[in-house]
Amino acid sequence: MRAWPGDGIAFGGDYNPEQWPRAIWDEDMRLMRKAGVTFVTLGVFSWSWLEPTKGEYTFEWLDEAMDLLHANGIAVDLATATATPPPWLTSAYPEILPVDHDGHRLWPGSRQSWCPSSRLYRELALALTERLAARYHDHPALAMWHVSNEYACHNLPCYCDTCAIAFRAWLEQRYATLDALNNAWGTAFWSQRYTAWEDILPPRRTTTFANPTQVLDYHRFGSDTLLAFYRDEHEVIRRHSPEVPVTTNFMTMSNFRHLDYHDWAPFQDVISTDHYVVDALDHPRAELSFHGDLTRGLAGGRPWMLMEHSTSAVNWQPVNPAKAPGGTVLDSLTHVARGADTLGFFQWRQSRSGSEKFHSALVPHAGEDSDRFREVCELGAISARLGEVLGSHVDADVAVLWDYEALWAMSGPCMPSSAIDYVTAPHTVHRLLRDRGITCDVVHPSADLSRYRVVVVPSLYLVSDEDAASIAAAAVAGAHVIVTYFSGISDPDDHVRLGGYPGAFRDLLGVRVEEFFPLRTDEVVALSGGGRGSQWSEDARVVDAEVVTTYAEGPLNGRPAVTRRSVGSGTAWYLGTLPDDTSLGSLLEEVAELAGVEPVTTVAPGVEVVRRSGSDGSWLFVLNHTTAEQELTVTGHDLVSGSDVGPTHLLAPLSAAVVRES
Amino acid sequence: MRAWPGDGIAFGGDYNPEQWPRAIWDEDMRLMRKAGVTFVTLGVFSWSWLEPTKGEYTFEWLDEAMDLLHANGIAVDLATATATPPPWLTSAYPEILPVDHDGHRLWPGSRQSWCPSSRLYRELALALTERLAARYHDHPALAMWHVSNEYACHNLPCYCDTCAIAFRAWLEQRYATLDALNNAWGTAFWSQRYTAWEDILPPRRTTTFANPTQVLDYHRFGSDTLLAFYRDEHEVIRRHSPEVPVTTNFMTMSNFRHLDYHDWAPFQDVISTDHYVVDALDHPRAELSFHGDLTRGLAGGRPWMLMEHSTSAVNWQPVNPAKAPGGTVLDSLTHVARGADTLGFFQWRQSRSGSEKFHSALVPHAGEDSDRFREVCELGAISARLGEVLGSHVDADVAVLWDYEALWAMSGPCMPSSAIDYVTAPHTVHRLLRDRGITCDVVHPSADLSRYRVVVVPSLYLVSDEDAASIAAAAVAGAHVIVTYFSGISDPDDHVRLGGYPGAFRDLLGVRVEEFFPLRTDEVVALSGGGRGSQWSEDARVVDAEVVTTYAEGPLNGRPAVTRRSVGSGTAWYLGTLPDDTSLGSLLEEVAELAGVEPVTTVAPGVEVVRRSGSDGSWLFVLNHTTAEQELTVTGHDLVSGSDVGPTHLLAPLSAAVVRES
Amino acid sequence: MRAWPGDGIAFGGDYNPEQWPRAIWDEDMRLMRKAGVTFVTLGVFSWSWLEPTKGEYTFEWLDEAMDLLHANGIAVDLATATATPPPWLTSAYPEILPVDHDGHRLWPGSRQSWCPSSRLYRELALALTERLAARYHDHPALAMWHVSNEYACHNLPCYCDTCAIAFRAWLEQRYATLDALNNAWGTAFWSQRYTAWEDILPPRRTTTFANPTQVLDYHRFGSDTLLAFYRDEHEVIRRHSPEVPVTTNFMTMSNFRHLDYHDWAPFQDVISTDHYVVDALDHPRAELSFHGDLTRGLAGGRPWMLMEHSTSAVNWQPVNPAKAPGGTVLDSLTHVARGADTLGFFQWRQSRSGSEKFHSALVPHAGEDSDRFREVCELGAISARLGEVLGSHVDADVAVLWDYEALWAMSGPCMPSSAIDYVTAPHTVHRLLRDRGITCDVVHPSADLSRYRVVVVPSLYLVSDEDAASIAAAAVAGAHVIVTYFSGISDPDDHVRLGGYPGAFRDLLGVRVEEFFPLRTDEVVALSGGGRGSQWSEDARVVDAEVVTTYAEGPLNGRPAVTRRSVGSGTAWYLGTLPDDTSLGSLLEEVAELAGVEPVTTVAPGVEVVRRSGSDGSWLFVLNHTTAEQELTVTGHDLVSGSDVGPTHLLAPLSAAVVRES
Repeated sequence: MRAWPGDGIAFGGDYNPEQWPRAIWDEDMRLMRKAGVTFVTLGVFSWSWLEPTKGEYTFEWLDEAMDLLHANGIAVDLATATATPPPWLTSAYPEILPVDHDGHRLWPGSRQSWCPSSRLYRELALALTERLAARYHDHPALAMWHVSNEYACHNLPCYCDTCAIAFRAWLEQRYATLDALNNAWGTAFWSQRYTAWEDILPPRRTTTFANPTQVLDYHRFGSDTLLAFYRDEHEVIRRHSPEVPVTTNFMTMSNFRHLDYHDWAPFQDVISTDHYVVDALDHPRAELSFHGDLTRGLAGGRPWMLMEHSTSAVNWQPVNPAKAPGGTVLDSLTHVARGADTLGFFQWRQSRSGSEKFHSALVPHAGEDSDRFREVCELGAISARLGEVLGSHVDADVAVLWDYEALWAMSGPCMPSSAIDYVTAPHTVHRLLRDRGITCDVVHPSADLSRYRVVVVPSLYLVSDEDAASIAAAAVAGAHVIVTYFSGISDPDDHVRLGGYPGAFRDLLGVRVEEFFPLRTDEVVALSGGGRGSQWSEDARVVDAEVVTTYAEGPLNGRPAVTRRSVGSGTAWYLGTLPDDTSLGSLLEEVAELAGVEPVTTVAPGVEVVRRSGSDGSWLFVLNHTTAEQELTVTGHDLVSGSDVGPTHLLAPLSAAVVRES
Repeated sequence: MRAWPGDGIAFGGDYNPEQWPRAIWDEDMRLMRKAGVTFVTLGVFSWSWLEPTKGEYTFEWLDEAMDLLHANGIAVDLATATATPPPWLTSAYPEILPVDHDGHRLWPGSRQSWCPSSRLYRELALALTERLAARYHDHPALAMWHVSNEYACHNLPCYCDTCAIAFRAWLEQRYATLDALNNAWGTAFWSQRYTAWEDILPPRRTTTFANPTQVLDYHRFGSDTLLAFYRDEHEVIRRHSPEVPVTTNFMTMSNFRHLDYHDWAPFQDVISTDHYVVDALDHPRAELSFHGDLTRGLAGGRPWMLMEHSTSAVNWQPVNPAKAPGGTVLDSLTHVARGADTLGFFQWRQSRSGSEKFHSALVPHAGEDSDRFREVCELGAISARLGEVLGSHVDADVAVLWDYEALWAMSGPCMPSSAIDYVTAPHTVHRLLRDRGITCDVVHPSADLSRYRVVVVPSLYLVSDEDAASIAAAAVAGAHVIVTYFSGISDPDDHVRLGGYPGAFRDLLGVRVEEFFPLRTDEVVALSGGGRGSQWSEDARVVDAEVVTTYAEGPLNGRPAVTRRSVGSGTAWYLGTLPDDTSLGSLLEEVAELAGVEPVTTVAPGVEVVRRSGSDGSWLFVLNHTTAEQELTVTGHDLVSGSDVGPTHLLAPLSAAVVRES
Repeated sequence: MRAWPGDGIAFGGDYNPEQWPRAIWDEDMRLMRKAGVTFVTLGVFSWSWLEPTKGEYTFEWLDEAMDLLHANGIAVDLATATATPPPWLTSAYPEILPVDHDGHRLWPGSRQSWCPSSRLYRELALALTERLAARYHDHPALAMWHVSNEYACHNLPCYCDTCAIAFRAWLEQRYATLDALNNAWGTAFWSQRYTAWEDILPPRRTTTFANPTQVLDYHRFGSDTLLAFYRDEHEVIRRHSPEVPVTTNFMTMSNFRHLDYHDWAPFQDVISTDHYVVDALDHPRAELSFHGDLTRGLAGGRPWMLMEHSTSAVNWQPVNPAKAPGGTVLDSLTHVARGADTLGFFQWRQSRSGSEKFHSALVPHAGEDSDRFREVCELGAISARLGEVLGSHVDADVAVLWDYEALWAMSGPCMPSSAIDYVTAPHTVHRLLRDRGITCDVVHPSADLSRYRVVVVPSLYLVSDEDAASIAAAAVAGAHVIVTYFSGISDPDDHVRLGGYPGAFRDLLGVRVEEFFPLRTDEVVALSGGGRGSQWSEDARVVDAEVVTTYAEGPLNGRPAVTRRSVGSGTAWYLGTLPDDTSLGSLLEEVAELAGVEPVTTVAPGVEVVRRSGSDGSWLFVLNHTTAEQELTVTGHDLVSGSDVGPTHLLAPLSAAVVRES
């Protein structure tokens, strides 16, 4: 298969020349060369320009753009343009429009207005894909195929009648018999027992709470349906273009939750993702680092592509401030630190009209003469210098488990608390370890856990028997396993494991929980030792474990909040609540020390460190997120500044160093 | 009519054996006996198990369950299973699905997905009822019929075309002529005058505020429609089973407001209700006590059945903490104190799947070996010991008025304030009296008020002339009548009584209000004497009354906030605002003292006392809602502990005593 | 054209006699005479009384009301009654019902339930208008025609299929070619390029953000569509009644934003408007003054009619307190101070039923014997005494620009911040100037700016080249032009002006902004000199200007926040943020002093002053909004008290003086 181009970190972004007059294209080439752009993604939203009316194709402009890019030495990640249908298509076939939970038709006028189950849409999209693959498979600019775009960002879940039919077929495939489905969904309750497949519907707006397993299966169905669509496009391209890698851009961001990327990853020739910083989060950069590690986990530890991020402000938040000076470089290098070998942005030139005109770009509204474009050029130069890092890997002794099925199930209807969010526990643990210079892998529960010294199981509400056994085995084999509140509660059908919570981990932890006491929003509970718990508490009884911390007030006063149990060569820790940062940080430090997990290096608060290692050496990424200068103890050659450093190095505010360690 | 079984307080709950394998049923019998269960409600959601496809009936499993229960000495409250249709039914007849205010079809997949006006659904439901009544009317386990379940919990109001037709018929019945309807609805305004019955619609989503009397009538229509349905089912059962009492479970909870239970009560052979504690309330246990008293009022002072409550957490709140240890017993005995002679729970065994799997039960997920199940067994034993209380009554000298029509009207569109809630004033007065050991009846304004020394009229926005006259007569006859803000404003057509507020009570109070000054959320106004008012204020002028308290700031500075007037042998008090707890508590103490109303006994804060009295003696219920031990002055035999107590008794935290007084 | 009647300020309001029995009408006449009512608006919601079934007309009651009013010397502003169709009409033609953004049909049962694009509705409405015009054009009571009522208050935007067709026609008119439309809307992005007019839809509910220019054009289309309807009614009336002025009541309130009244104004024989005070605003009376000035601007500086306001509480807010005593007079005279020559109220007699029964009126529920009615009578007497003010004008040296198109564009989807509101900047500047006794005109950017010494351009996000040039010319000619943050960003197609913000004013200000840093809700940023900015900040670079204030913290630390530049004979000021009241107030004082703008007179905080001037003299309006007595320095004759005052005058709390200056 053809290699992804470049001697440095590939650097570029979405290029939408159809938005601009032809004269601008030449200016674009000049500025791309100036900025050091090595690749662009072309054609993501071009269907209406490639096929302006049904069956009438206009590829000439794309030919010209491809040729121009090639002439300028810029590789092309060519999109299949099937992410969004043109107006004529939805006008001719309104039945492909998605329908929301309440039964509202989602009209065109935005993007991705198509039903994921529509065979008709798939046929039309595959026809365009076929034409593109046939025409461009041997174009010299072509370096990668980019199927569709951000699958499911807006059109999942769809609740239309087409989806209802497809859902039934998916269920018949999954369950084979109605008895099996009735058992899995628990339809004995609320008179929901099905006696004909035809009676089954999507979990549409109903009178009160929907059936939770039906909702969970609808998540699975949605993800599987789009994956099948992706695979169909992949297959069409592969037929024409066997040597060029194919990908689709994931969205590994905490606020995108529709696809189970662990299912999707095996079908990517290379993992690529989009990530945007969410300003409203308490810890936006910790979220970035977490999802970088998650993406690396999806890539099986191999390097991955950051297909899209932003140089500065986005346009879809309630308030969208620009990034501080230096922020473009800092955020980008954080992704590289976590394993990215490509830095793509949305988009090359900031639009002057349309829905994304206030989304930042490589070339801002202010133009070439602007600090942001100068920072872009700086980043391009850095990317070129980072070539030696390519293909190196990030090693971690700690695994934080992440599972989209557990996320879906925990977000279902009528749970003990809707005030808690699946991501809180994994994000918090990851952030506190990152603050201490400890790198984590973020992996699926089914991953090989044998190589980790610490395995964190954060609110893994739903878990299979196999995965629970693998987690227990890790402890027996010597790892420190930390299981937090509300883990191991249900099986993959979302049936509660009976006999005391957390069913799947009761024996491992030596703890038996009788009832849940979720904490109200903003409620905290005092813990022995001076800490405070939030989010959750539960009435745990020690069966065979040592009590580390107890509740110090309230209905659980004196009951265990944190316990530990020796198991085989390892240790199983239980957290029944989410301790405050200080308490949990201390606990994690203690566990790390016991487990022999070392920080990458000692860091000041707000400084992030990650090491990438290769056959030829290692590179220390140091990311100064603070607005103060920071002194580091490091010796080697800094690829960012291009200078040797050591034994100490002063790092400017909001800047980064990538030191090839001596 | 057959008597409700048992020597003690009947104890049990909903039993859904169809959720579990047959082997579990035997285990259920063992545990029921262990827990002291005397009855179960069977079949509430069993339609899809009784008639899995149209016209195919499978009663065998129910036969077996009935026999098994009978063999174990457990009485059955048999549900008609018509609360929720099976999937095949809504699939075959989608026209029975309800439609919400915005026009959204409410699909099946939850429960109660049927239009209240559907004749078709009624026919299908009555057919099943008929089969059940015919088959089980002489089964020896049968002790009661349980029609449907929690009517209107989810399917009212429905705005479908079937309802539109039914609404017109209901209106024609009510008004006879369009002139009368036009007058009642005030259609002279906003060009709403009707000249054909066919033009009338439900108050569906419209451009801005709906007609308030149309909305009020739609509430009435909904309640009447379901009552007619209930009566049809009742009639079918009665034909087959003349000796067995029939009931349906009300929902006398402050957050359920769709049915006028004062209309429904006369058609119950025994009043039964469901009550769940709402964690988010400021005073959840005071709400419980209030609605116990309301249920007793619906039962005309006679004992009633608590058909459902929860042993611990529910699953439908945003956050659902478990009850503290002791809470199951304490909440149950609070209901008994207020007149319940039956303690039912939802449900026997906690589901492992489906929408209510995190709703607590008599047998929790943790199983037999759990503190909660041990508390359940303790409650079963206590219930058995409480047999001597059966049939005794609660006597009150204070009446708090409650009217669902006033509630509906006050909750209507475009009112002076949507920041006030009908329940606030009655709940507050009731709670402050309860804190002082004073028991209230909660009764409809049309109740016989002559036996009360104090009558509280809390924000009775809408009132009929007859009821207003009856309230005034109570004062003339010697009672202290307390009328709060925003009472007596409109008549049953929701026409404002002109000439100065509160029209219906202006003469009684000797006060004339010119304008309303509702207070903003969180706004308070200083009162003379140091108190503070919240919720509401109004520009009152004294015509013939004594000023007790005035406003001490703001636009009403110096105007009367509280007045009193001697009238006949009694006194009429007026409250233009809601004073803070301390001020209002003092006022209520003063009124009680003047009226000669004695507390049941002196209590510490957080301890609730109620007396039930019978021909053979009296029982003092003492409920310690605090987390501290409390010393009581009481002598007699405590049925809870089974021991003699006196002259003082130490009551453990969160526990109760029921002392047969010597 | 016939003159609007009266020797004093015309005084009256909406009169809906059809709500009341005939006997009340005579009582109404007595009370109108007592109150000094000189005019009423009749028939606003009378369609169902004028045409109770299709083609059956019942004008007799209206004849009688007209005659009765005439006999009592009261002029009639006769409504065409087309604001709200009767039930029979929407029942017969349900296709005229509007449809909301999500596709919900908006049913009748409220008011204005008709689609603005419906030709059918227009025909039916014009037929009624024709009959009314033919019948009453020469009635002696007739003084004005009142077309429809509060256009667009509830039925805009409508998204139905009829509107889709009309929108396409409107677009074809505007753009002529699809290429022009595609360019204006920026459809090159997100595959939105149109190749057939038939594919275009209203911006209905879609998957994510709608196209902003499509949304903007839909605002324009809605306003234009209703204006065409208004003009059709106007034309029908004019044909029958050439001598009687025609108007429709605008709603110049900050929370009504659907119509571009600058487009509508030229088609009014006299500008009339409705204004209601919004209790939840931080500065409700400043909002009133602002919109009075805006209305005067719409009237080209000529006097205008306040068609509706309220004597006291309204009924459509979450909480609706009554006005304080004196508030009726004070609010009314504030409008007169700003140029109103008519004081109309909604409505004459407070309804006893229907949706507006808790909306205050001239005759309250409490009746004639009430303080509010006595205040109404006082206002009537004052109005009569104010005759000498009629026709006088308000002169201002300061213009604040206001543009509904800029408002619409700035409120569009996916902007840099949805936490800022178009009205904040103009309201704040106007309020701070008002607090300092300085009167502003509020005018469209295309107004003649040459007569102003200060021109404020507050967040004028969208601006045409012509208007931007006119603003710059004002500075060159000597004015102080103050341009605030987020002005001049886009052109009338909402295309961003490239090369650095604020494109349209970059040269004028000598400032170039590279990026936006909108501030989060409740976020503030320190400024040099001790002030604080809120709402917004931006990364500005001085090209040719003097830095007045800089940011003192955060990512923009040290960057300019306020600058000034000499330009021609004038000065261009730039504000990149919204300074706190104290800082901005000082700045405005400085600018006023530099510009030679004098306050009307010196005032204490909370006292508002405006001067009206005529050929015969001038009148100082002094409005004491405080609850304290205020001493004024003024000499002349006070028309409110009817007494001579001077050289000082004590003004009671919440009261007004109108002093004919000596």
